[in-house]
Amino acid sequence: METKNTKAFGTVAADAPLNEMNIQRRVPTPTDVEIDILYCGVCHSDLHTARNDWGGSIYPVVPGHEIVGKITRVGSNVTKFKVGDLAAVGCMVDSCRECESCEHDLEQYCSHGMTGTYNAPDKHLGGQTYGGYSERVVVDEHFVLKVPTNLNLAAVAPLLCAGITTWSPLRHWNAGKGSKVAVVGLGGLGHMAIKLAKGLGAEVSLFSRTPGKTQDALDLGADHVVISTDPKQMEAVKGTFDLIIDTVPYVHDVNPYVATLNINGTHVLVGYLGDLNPMLNTVPMIMGRKSVAGSVIGGIAETQELLDFCGKHNIVSEIEMINMQDINTAYERMLKSDVRYRFVIDMASLKK
Amino acid sequence: METKNTKAFGTVAADAPLNEMNIQRRVPTPTDVEIDILYCGVCHSDLHTARNDWGGSIYPVVPGHEIVGKITRVGSNVTKFKVGDLAAVGCMVDSCRECESCEHDLEQYCSHGMTGTYNAPDKHLGGQTYGGYSERVVVDEHFVLKVPTNLNLAAVAPLLCAGITTWSPLRHWNAGKGSKVAVVGLGGLGHMAIKLAKGLGAEVSLFSRTPGKTQDALDLGADHVVISTDPKQMEAVKGTFDLIIDTVPYVHDVNPYVATLNINGTHVLVGYLGDLNPMLNTVPMIMGRKSVAGSVIGGIAETQELLDFCGKHNIVSEIEMINMQDINTAYERMLKSDVRYRFVIDMASLKK
Repeated sequence: METKNTKAFGTVAADAPLNEMNIQRRVPTPTDVEIDILYCGVCHSDLHTARNDWGGSIYPVVPGHEIVGKITRVGSNVTKFKVGDLAAVGCMVDSCRECESCEHDLEQYCSHGMTGTYNAPDKHLGGQTYGGYSERVVVDEHFVLKVPTNLNLAAVAPLLCAGITTWSPLRHWNAGKGSKVAVVGLGGLGHMAIKLAKGLGAEVSLFSRTPGKTQDALDLGADHVVISTDPKQMEAVKGTFDLIIDTVPYVHDVNPYVATLNINGTHVLVGYLGDLNPMLNTVPMIMGRKSVAGSVIGGIAETQELLDFCGKHNIVSEIEMINMQDINTAYERMLKSDVRYRFVIDMASLKK
Repeated sequence: METKNTKAFGTVAADAPLNEMNIQRRVPTPTDVEIDILYCGVCHSDLHTARNDWGGSIYPVVPGHEIVGKITRVGSNVTKFKVGDLAAVGCMVDSCRECESCEHDLEQYCSHGMTGTYNAPDKHLGGQTYGGYSERVVVDEHFVLKVPTNLNLAAVAPLLCAGITTWSPLRHWNAGKGSKVAVVGLGGLGHMAIKLAKGLGAEVSLFSRTPGKTQDALDLGADHVVISTDPKQMEAVKGTFDLIIDTVPYVHDVNPYVATLNINGTHVLVGYLGDLNPMLNTVPMIMGRKSVAGSVIGGIAETQELLDFCGKHNIVSEIEMINMQDINTAYERMLKSDVRYRFVIDMASLKK
């Protein structure tokens, strides 16, 4: 298969810093588009995969799955895009397209496993897929999104992961006018959850462990901030929320939040993969028909819906722009939660 | 308030056997009906309350919340019933009727707490409410159900708790034609879950720890039996079920069942009150948008819907009839799961 030399930034080992490297991109097949990457958001998954925190990393790792850019080439059968169009790619670049999930626009739950934008088996070239920390990417048009032209393009990038990860549960559990939504955690995901829930018309609260984030949350559109370490404030919101979007990525006690769910309410975990410790108690769940659920990113159609919604409602991520060469420092700052609220790489810096 | 001497069967202490005793029933207020109790089902909650297993029992305790009988007297404003009608009472005899839950026919989730048929504060006479192990009961007509005339009346009694406890989640999570439902545990609740899910048109599986219950489950209408201790059988049903009704009343590992849920599937606990031990793992929940939820009995309108459905589809409980005087032996047998599938007391035995 014909390929093209492509400059990228990645790592060769779990304990090595990210550095410039060369990768191959396939020349577009009839259904592919080639995208010149302009901006790429920096997700916690990038860091965890680069450092093999979850196991299973295949080196070299080129992270990046919040990709926006401009179409530079299209395959002969491409119908959705033309050269010069803005385009975006999120966490998936393929799936089986035949299973029940894929047929219902739920490619993220493909029963054969979706193909991740990085660190997944590359069906075309063999080896593993490489992400957006690179000059260009080649993706089947089905997995490429259209980008509204009225938004700050760099600030669109985080919508492709942080945005859709919170949008999908908000939509699936029908957040909207008349519903009360709470968000746990104010990071890349949490700040998008507030903006999107507010955009959908819900009454939005942030759970925060300290009052320090109150003004930020209100500035982002939250109606209320509940200090979760204050028993009085927690008691005051008992039985309140229809939906809680829990973006916390580390182990934490979910029981105090379940107590704040209204009858039929759902607590959705989108950030923490692991055992619920302390143990989840079933009494409030049974006595209030409450659910604890999980959700991962969103389907392609739903991601397009999100981008269109953001275009219409002028919603983007709050970002701090960095150069590609700053990525190792950015990872260290992310580990200290020292970012408001998402790093985005100006990919022009890679081309210098 | 005028009252009537009523023969009952109850206990004066956690460690005392149940014995005949005398209680007072109010003379019907304008919205009350008086019911001559013909049959009363025996629920595990009866035993737990009699023995103060959950704490909070107020003695004397007169259990019984699966009540069917005949109307003997109606208050002046009663419109739903007339003397001579069949009638039934389940787990609730009152609620606030004003909160959001009550206004949405979800009296079981009344934000002020529903009034249990026994061991709850009696709003009329003070003291506590007394259940169906008695000659008669007086209840506001709103909490009294109509009973189809074509069914075996004794076998209708367990519908009022075991039936509605499984019917409500089946309906709330849309079990029906095209859906795959699994039931965990084959007791009073589990056997009703099979019959009702089948009646709704679902494809029904029973999870059983031993093959001994296979023929029984098939006789009750199950399409499949999955031996949960056989890793091959569990692997074969991975990702299969839309809804699991988990009737197991003691602590057990929920994770193997969550693995058998399809995308968007829900595991509903209706029997076990306590901590989920071993801990629930979020990975399959997040990777398949799966939920773990709880549910308790059902609202009055929903209970009527169940009774009407059972009349139409000729569904009743499998029962073993006992005399009131056999109740202490019956409790011992229930603790050994030695009942197929529900004891029902022939209340004529109390009148002798």
